[in-house]
Amino acid sequence: MKLGVDYYPEHWPIELLEEDLSRIVDLGATTIRIGEFAWHMIEPVEGTFDFSYFDKVIEKAKQKGLDIVYGTPTATFPAWLAKKYPKVLSKDEHGQTRVFGGRRQYCYNSDDYLRLSLNMVENLTAHYGNEKAIVMWQVDNEFGHEGSDDCYCESCASKFRVFLKEKYGKVEQLNETYGTVFWGQTYNDFEEIPMPLATITTHNPVLKLDWARFRSHSVNAFAKAHIDAITRKKGDHQQITHNYFGGYFDRRYDQNELSKHLDVVAFDNYPVWGGLMKPIEPAEIALAHDYMRGLKQKNFWVMEQLIGAQGHDDIGYLPLEGESSLWASGAMARGCESLFYFRYRGFTKGAEQFCQGILDADNRINDKYKEVQRFFKWAREFEPIWKTPIKNEVAVLYDYDNRWSWKGQRQSSGFDYTSEILRGYRSFYALNTGIDVIDLNKPFTDYKILILPVMQLMSSELSQALESFVSNGGILLFTYRTAIKDKENNLVFGEQVPCYLNDLVGAQVNKYESLGEYRTVNILKGAKTVGEAGVWRDMLQPTTAVSLFNYEAPFEQYSACTVNEYGKGKVYYVAAGFQAQLMDEIAQMMLKDADVFSVKTPFGLELIRRIVDNQIIYILLNHLQVRQQWRGLTIEALEVKIFDELPI
Amino acid sequence: MKLGVDYYPEHWPIELLEEDLSRIVDLGATTIRIGEFAWHMIEPVEGTFDFSYFDKVIEKAKQKGLDIVYGTPTATFPAWLAKKYPKVLSKDEHGQTRVFGGRRQYCYNSDDYLRLSLNMVENLTAHYGNEKAIVMWQVDNEFGHEGSDDCYCESCASKFRVFLKEKYGKVEQLNETYGTVFWGQTYNDFEEIPMPLATITTHNPVLKLDWARFRSHSVNAFAKAHIDAITRKKGDHQQITHNYFGGYFDRRYDQNELSKHLDVVAFDNYPVWGGLMKPIEPAEIALAHDYMRGLKQKNFWVMEQLIGAQGHDDIGYLPLEGESSLWASGAMARGCESLFYFRYRGFTKGAEQFCQGILDADNRINDKYKEVQRFFKWAREFEPIWKTPIKNEVAVLYDYDNRWSWKGQRQSSGFDYTSEILRGYRSFYALNTGIDVIDLNKPFTDYKILILPVMQLMSSELSQALESFVSNGGILLFTYRTAIKDKENNLVFGEQVPCYLNDLVGAQVNKYESLGEYRTVNILKGAKTVGEAGVWRDMLQPTTAVSLFNYEAPFEQYSACTVNEYGKGKVYYVAAGFQAQLMDEIAQMMLKDADVFSVKTPFGLELIRRIVDNQIIYILLNHLQVRQQWRGLTIEALEVKIFDELPI
Amino acid sequence: MKLGVDYYPEHWPIELLEEDLSRIVDLGATTIRIGEFAWHMIEPVEGTFDFSYFDKVIEKAKQKGLDIVYGTPTATFPAWLAKKYPKVLSKDEHGQTRVFGGRRQYCYNSDDYLRLSLNMVENLTAHYGNEKAIVMWQVDNEFGHEGSDDCYCESCASKFRVFLKEKYGKVEQLNETYGTVFWGQTYNDFEEIPMPLATITTHNPVLKLDWARFRSHSVNAFAKAHIDAITRKKGDHQQITHNYFGGYFDRRYDQNELSKHLDVVAFDNYPVWGGLMKPIEPAEIALAHDYMRGLKQKNFWVMEQLIGAQGHDDIGYLPLEGESSLWASGAMARGCESLFYFRYRGFTKGAEQFCQGILDADNRINDKYKEVQRFFKWAREFEPIWKTPIKNEVAVLYDYDNRWSWKGQRQSSGFDYTSEILRGYRSFYALNTGIDVIDLNKPFTDYKILILPVMQLMSSELSQALESFVSNGGILLFTYRTAIKDKENNLVFGEQVPCYLNDLVGAQVNKYESLGEYRTVNILKGAKTVGEAGVWRDMLQPTTAVSLFNYEAPFEQYSACTVNEYGKGKVYYVAAGFQAQLMDEIAQMMLKDADVFSVKTPFGLELIRRIVDNQIIYILLNHLQVRQQWRGLTIEALEVKIFDELPI
Repeated sequence: MKLGVDYYPEHWPIELLEEDLSRIVDLGATTIRIGEFAWHMIEPVEGTFDFSYFDKVIEKAKQKGLDIVYGTPTATFPAWLAKKYPKVLSKDEHGQTRVFGGRRQYCYNSDDYLRLSLNMVENLTAHYGNEKAIVMWQVDNEFGHEGSDDCYCESCASKFRVFLKEKYGKVEQLNETYGTVFWGQTYNDFEEIPMPLATITTHNPVLKLDWARFRSHSVNAFAKAHIDAITRKKGDHQQITHNYFGGYFDRRYDQNELSKHLDVVAFDNYPVWGGLMKPIEPAEIALAHDYMRGLKQKNFWVMEQLIGAQGHDDIGYLPLEGESSLWASGAMARGCESLFYFRYRGFTKGAEQFCQGILDADNRINDKYKEVQRFFKWAREFEPIWKTPIKNEVAVLYDYDNRWSWKGQRQSSGFDYTSEILRGYRSFYALNTGIDVIDLNKPFTDYKILILPVMQLMSSELSQALESFVSNGGILLFTYRTAIKDKENNLVFGEQVPCYLNDLVGAQVNKYESLGEYRTVNILKGAKTVGEAGVWRDMLQPTTAVSLFNYEAPFEQYSACTVNEYGKGKVYYVAAGFQAQLMDEIAQMMLKDADVFSVKTPFGLELIRRIVDNQIIYILLNHLQVRQQWRGLTIEALEVKIFDELPI
Repeated sequence: MKLGVDYYPEHWPIELLEEDLSRIVDLGATTIRIGEFAWHMIEPVEGTFDFSYFDKVIEKAKQKGLDIVYGTPTATFPAWLAKKYPKVLSKDEHGQTRVFGGRRQYCYNSDDYLRLSLNMVENLTAHYGNEKAIVMWQVDNEFGHEGSDDCYCESCASKFRVFLKEKYGKVEQLNETYGTVFWGQTYNDFEEIPMPLATITTHNPVLKLDWARFRSHSVNAFAKAHIDAITRKKGDHQQITHNYFGGYFDRRYDQNELSKHLDVVAFDNYPVWGGLMKPIEPAEIALAHDYMRGLKQKNFWVMEQLIGAQGHDDIGYLPLEGESSLWASGAMARGCESLFYFRYRGFTKGAEQFCQGILDADNRINDKYKEVQRFFKWAREFEPIWKTPIKNEVAVLYDYDNRWSWKGQRQSSGFDYTSEILRGYRSFYALNTGIDVIDLNKPFTDYKILILPVMQLMSSELSQALESFVSNGGILLFTYRTAIKDKENNLVFGEQVPCYLNDLVGAQVNKYESLGEYRTVNILKGAKTVGEAGVWRDMLQPTTAVSLFNYEAPFEQYSACTVNEYGKGKVYYVAAGFQAQLMDEIAQMMLKDADVFSVKTPFGLELIRRIVDNQIIYILLNHLQVRQQWRGLTIEALEVKIFDELPI
Repeated sequence: MKLGVDYYPEHWPIELLEEDLSRIVDLGATTIRIGEFAWHMIEPVEGTFDFSYFDKVIEKAKQKGLDIVYGTPTATFPAWLAKKYPKVLSKDEHGQTRVFGGRRQYCYNSDDYLRLSLNMVENLTAHYGNEKAIVMWQVDNEFGHEGSDDCYCESCASKFRVFLKEKYGKVEQLNETYGTVFWGQTYNDFEEIPMPLATITTHNPVLKLDWARFRSHSVNAFAKAHIDAITRKKGDHQQITHNYFGGYFDRRYDQNELSKHLDVVAFDNYPVWGGLMKPIEPAEIALAHDYMRGLKQKNFWVMEQLIGAQGHDDIGYLPLEGESSLWASGAMARGCESLFYFRYRGFTKGAEQFCQGILDADNRINDKYKEVQRFFKWAREFEPIWKTPIKNEVAVLYDYDNRWSWKGQRQSSGFDYTSEILRGYRSFYALNTGIDVIDLNKPFTDYKILILPVMQLMSSELSQALESFVSNGGILLFTYRTAIKDKENNLVFGEQVPCYLNDLVGAQVNKYESLGEYRTVNILKGAKTVGEAGVWRDMLQPTTAVSLFNYEAPFEQYSACTVNEYGKGKVYYVAAGFQAQLMDEIAQMMLKDADVFSVKTPFGLELIRRIVDNQIIYILLNHLQVRQQWRGLTIEALEVKIFDELPI
């Protein structure tokens, strides 16, 4: 277990180094992350390398007994590079070039950028490959952050065509798949194919999905080349990670693909940032951890743990004393095994002036310093827990192709992919059931419960695997718009929705209606209104399934939610954007069906159940700013408790 | 009378053709529209034509006894064309080129596009000029849809200057008309004149109006060239139409100009589309029909009748069973004489995946199919009604120059031209009076009532014609901002507003105030508040007129609405954006003045009165989703009734 | 004292000149402003000058006894210039060139524009340098209006680099100041430095501030060159002014810099404009006057006094009869010594068709004409008052660097610099205390009270000057976020906030929180909630200061407002965006501390106290549209009263 801070010695006079490192050690840290963003310091002019500054820093750190995570500095590049090779700068969807002066403005498809950055990384890793103190390489930083995974430059245009050519071989195959006969868009040659820039009305949905896949490919191929370069030169004792930015499904690349090549994944744990007036809800915080753990289906690192208010131009909510520790503890509880605070001390200059570190510009030991110190002590105390792997019985399945398909055509102005994942996740979270959040291509047969929200892309292979899962006793939840399309983003001719799944679901979708951002409809159990739904509704016609909920007139003949017994298992289909209380009711049925552990806690109390050496450990977090009582326990505001017997 | 469907056989395997056509016949259809969007199929590479596919389709259709409307496929163009002639692509107001991949991205002023598209159309019409089954050519499709009538490319810039040169002859004349002495903008040469792209604050109002006229000219000249090309080669038995997109006054060309060259006009009857959460109001649906009928002052076609939910990226309201039939019936009642459903079957691929047809991707006979079948049967039963011409006693007059003048300077943030047309139209609609909606240049002397909403451009010729109309007993309604400008969009020096109309109106406008989007003011009858007005108010000073309504302090000395007896007729001036109930009261006075038929029905019940062979026929539509009672009649939800005696 | 109108004879047939001038004289005017915007009339083709038209106008004006303010016409330029020198056109932040056809689209950094415009101005002033009737040159018009002080063209890019080179000398110095080590942005050469165009996330804060300073420098250097050119040729009897547009702190240049070179400053007095539905509040109107007077710390002119509704594309509120006079009187009361109405008659053509003048297009003598006539008579009657200088005991201090620092990073989505200035100003205004509004570099030691809102940039020099001010008995008010940064926009290392001011304030800021646009928090006095605050809050830890207000839990240990006795004076620190009633309470304490005149009047009644020849004169304005009673006085709606004894 590494506990540490992100430290930028180059921001400060060299005279501060000694005191800084001593204070870092006093904090209880064992490790520092350094180096990312410092390309210019090691290659101040093209082709000339100078490692003397970091040699000195590393030497000092070793003297203090600190290990090092070294971030390759390609997330930002030197001004000389932008000046000499202006085409490395990416372009937005209006064709405007992003100028030098921010971060991550490089195009992933720039040959010049790839060559220059690989050269730098190879020199760097060659220089430090034998450095024992460096235990981890972090490749680049926050790939794709802030929309940097989107670019519409000429390199992207031409490599997109190469990508399509490789995928389809012949343009006729592309025409057939796209259905370019529609609007007479048949291509005679790959060279005729546009990027999906502004046109009149909208682009072909398969083109849009292929563009999304190409963006993902661009990031992942760039990252892979970097990982390969590091691998060639690094020492055997050195591992490789990447620090993902937080957020959920709005990036343009599949992190599962990249994660395959990493030893461990790391990410930014920021439950509040920028101008947000309050932290995101506890379930969303937990979802991020479960998602990260799912990338490699093993424990992860937090490379940047928020400690204070953060913002570039806008600032928002100030975390209370203890709140950052609560969030760090929550990460540990859900599989974080090493954690670094961002950052030792906030810099007085630059675009992140208002991103607080542990210490502020006044350089005084403060409440935040003491809080981190306490947290590190606590984490160390319970170290055996954090090392233990986590395996749950419930999984939420997502799929980037599906997510991008929705991005291309949201269908309802109220639709948000992450919200739909959360709609499936939140009720199980509230019942304190352990949940894995994994992509569709991961094995899922060992789970007892699978949740597949808004899975509109479907293949017959997947449908068969799901049938087999349920036949063998699995409990499955679909939500609206399931299986309307094939994997290429086309509707399926001659099939009734949910395509390939009619038997499994035991119902068909006869009609559908978007409810948009503001409209809600009543959900009935028999004649009684029991709740509301928004965003979308499918009109379900049960065949073998039983209706659990239905709509009111004029669609009273349709079911709003069915359950179908299939083999030894059951399939639930929630046909509309049900509100939380209705989802809770369904989750409870499913947990009972599958005989999976759950326990209801009051809102704001989160219970995590870990099994360490066959012993059950409970971690209880109070997310609220007030004291709570539960089953005889008193939990102070923002308190974390660990115990091994569940109170009754 | 043609009843049919829009059919795209090229979207499907040829094996489906036989069954598809049989089902179309079973539907009760006599005609199919085909061909638009299929340029690439008949000219797959530049200059090489191949009609074999459509020859086959037409042959099959003939075997089934189906007639054909053939749409020339120039609304979309082949990818090879965009690649070889990139300047055909239009540019938006930020100079961004609209890329290939959508539809209608051609510039109307591209010489290359005109040449290539005319060549294609001439080859096409030459090939099918003798085809008896083809009874109608539809030129292009939905000219100007989705903003495609706006372009700011270099071709447009240079042709705009030619347009101005032709209009003004000498630049001095343009300077005088524009008043370029203002802000020192005097042009020495036509080459110095800009397109009205972003500048600091705003452009000259006459320049803006001339740009609008030029846009209109660009579309109409393009269309005329195409109509001429078709005319040269087509068979004598073949007519020419165009399918206008719906909506009202937001297009950038005068459809009256284009309609002169058509045998019949056709349009899209879509009372709900895209992400709309409910259909537009019944009065708006009716306005579209009355407007379409007014273009040629004769009956029209519906070339695309909505049958299901429609949307590209966003989807909205799902029409109920019977609702599409209600809308189709409403179109017939207001002058539609032939109607085609869009589309036989929704395509599984392409940008309109989510635009439902009669059949869905599952290809099963469904409720929509049966509904269309019933509608065709009903329409056939009452065929004599639909063939009869319609002539009304009330007309709403609009004028594109006036509309574009408002577009250039909306004056009030609450102003919307269509809403103002509706403000004049709605009360007469609610009283079930037949209304024509025609442009100002059509003859209007035979009407009993004229409504001229927000007619801010005025000429002395028009004022004289209106004086003559009223002198002879006509009843006239003006609304606010009437006659503040001459026909070139300049205020009139030395004239009191309403310019040229002081005597006719019997009042002058002393002051005015914009009320913007949210402000409302009370409207009084004497000392009693009787309603509200928004958007705008003129302060009227009656001379010979009588005040019907007035404002409260501090403008209590001004009238908000006057009526003036003039010759044998009367002139009403509504000086502010009156709410509907006040407009209703004025409409009732006018109908009484003019002795025109009207009958009040409850909201949602629409009564249309047709005269067929000197016999009066009533068509009653219930737009509501609930049963209504009226004068002893029971009208089911969404029901249409036809009868020949009005219940008392 | 000049009283006059803005007159554009060139808009009208020459036949109207005689009558127009006579009517202007009848109005009571002594002066006309002419000439701005008429470049093309005097240089119709490049290099050819023709003054004959204005010679004639001036001759006529002299015959009528009218003096002349002549505006150099460089705010708009001829079409031939834009055509021949397209690079003079400025570019917006998306790189889009602003086309000819509006106004002020020139780039201040265009060498061509500078050369051509100076040549024109030199010819003009040489021609009229001896003209006795011309008493004032107005250089250009409304520098920077409508965003015209922003430009991102290539000239700006290269001159920005020159500006930086001149400021920093060596690029190493710039790197050190910017902290370019952050994100590895170290520049090897000034040529590598970008303009702050769109990048990913945001730019360096010092770069942003330097860009703002460069924009200011660009405008001021251009203006200075023009003033120098006029000075070289003008007659000794001729003075120089500039007409500033209204508004407050949203322009991109420091008007204090420009004002140094002017004999007198002038501005647009428009308390309502465009689509505004009501005038700005009386305190804001007053702030504009106090700001204008502060630029040279002497009386000012109003060069454009609003008389009617104004708008380009949108129009709004119609000023009531007497309301324009009230606003003109308010300007006189606060230091206006000469006033011109905009404009004699509204033009029938051009972009300002809907900007009313005194006369309308109908050219009839109207209510507005009579109102102006009455106002001129009144102003003449009290002329001795207007000539008297104004000196107040309270000053609000602002600083453009500080304002631009906030613009670069607003920190709270609720932050608006002008609102924060108003928060400090409004309570003193409401108590009818005379206030100067001056920039930080003006001498301030003679004031009794200083108000420094949101002064986040601080130097040790300034802190010492403020300490000295308070030591000597001054009363000082700071608001939140004071002194977090040095003058270059960097946080201060090793200093506790408020930096350099810990002793003076007697408190430290331990934490801070943005409250954004919508969040408010309670403000307590002891345990009692007495009001609310928004936008931002500092958590104050008093050392020697006393807490006046505090927060509720969880920040109950921090003060929300402190007062500190320091030497003979006192320092107040308002740590959050306090609502008006709390600010009023603090203002009253301060006025009592400093023994400064104040008197509370009901809302809408504004009392100005002038000292003329050692005699106190009171001017009382009723901004409301209803009669008010105060201390036995009856003040009619919109009435202005002058008296020399304050009623008790």
